[in-house]
Amino acid sequence: MPRQSGTKRAILEAALELAADNGITGTTMENVAERAGVAKGSVYYNFTSKDRLFEELLLEGVGVLTETVRSARSALTGWPALQAMVRALLETVADNRALARLLAAEIFRTDRAWQPSLELLRREVLGEFIIPIRETSPPAEMDGRLELVAGSVFGAALTGGLEWLVFSPERSLDEVTESVLYGLSGRLAA
Amino acid sequence: MPRQSGTKRAILEAALELAADNGITGTTMENVAERAGVAKGSVYYNFTSKDRLFEELLLEGVGVLTETVRSARSALTGWPALQAMVRALLETVADNRALARLLAAEIFRTDRAWQPSLELLRREVLGEFIIPIRETSPPAEMDGRLELVAGSVFGAALTGGLEWLVFSPERSLDEVTESVLYGLSGRLAA
Repeated sequence: MPRQSGTKRAILEAALELAADNGITGTTMENVAERAGVAKGSVYYNFTSKDRLFEELLLEGVGVLTETVRSARSALTGWPALQAMVRALLETVADNRALARLLAAEIFRTDRAWQPSLELLRREVLGEFIIPIRETSPPAEMDGRLELVAGSVFGAALTGGLEWLVFSPERSLDEVTESVLYGLSGRLAA
Repeated sequence: MPRQSGTKRAILEAALELAADNGITGTTMENVAERAGVAKGSVYYNFTSKDRLFEELLLEGVGVLTETVRSARSALTGWPALQAMVRALLETVADNRALARLLAAEIFRTDRAWQPSLELLRREVLGEFIIPIRETSPPAEMDGRLELVAGSVFGAALTGGLEWLVFSPERSLDEVTESVLYGLSGRLAA
């Protein structure tokens, strides 16, 4: 998570914890102020509205995810790049559990004020996955569908990560990375 | 969706539509009664509480999904079974959009009254995927991790399906099925 002023950071953390427990709809600005230990006016001063607060929280989360997979890809290409990106994504999910669950719940909602900006960032993460996918030389008929392929690779990793945290927390990062990559490796189709 | 008495069915449909727009926390029994065109007492008579109403809605949804992938598997084994199950899952998602989005948002929440029963059913769907995965003869070291593999295969299909409905609705079921299966086919690792 990027560093911010203490108050802003505390408000974002409080909003995240509350939304993980009660959902965004079930979280009020009053709750957030109380949990963060600041005045309600300070929450409004820093974020203007509840919509702006959660927009910033979610966009920051997707931004971190994008940066993480981008830097995991770095000098790699094709399948080795995808392997590194899946691992980095799983590590980020493990380090930001509440945020990962919130993102999973929000990413396909179509009724939120922050939908347009979240959608832009979503395309950016998927764009990171499309690069190495394109490097594996998919056949021409897949051209217009690489975002769908990227979406399902991303979904395999995100779902594998949440499955891990919620239902199999005893597994190691290595084991979970291997399990997700196993599904993408072609062994299932062998 | 299974057939039920008209009133019960109308209440479930109303609850689903409202939750798709406002989230479960943002949906009240009053709203549901109004949308369904029944008295509030009738909603309570049929479902006892809001928790019971949404539990029934979500469990019914996962139940339909389980039945669908089970019958798609039918006499097939291994990869052909997985291909048929992914296609059936995508078709179900397309036919039950609001429910699919609600499930994606709920499946990893840990704060809901219905969590234990939803978790049982989740294991049942994943169990359906584990059967053909096991038929592909995974190496012994994957033994304890087939549920994670199944979870990420399921996640690839569910995310691919939601991506389709929300962001690429112009694609056909065939195209989306091929895109998800492309990611699982091993072409990325070739």
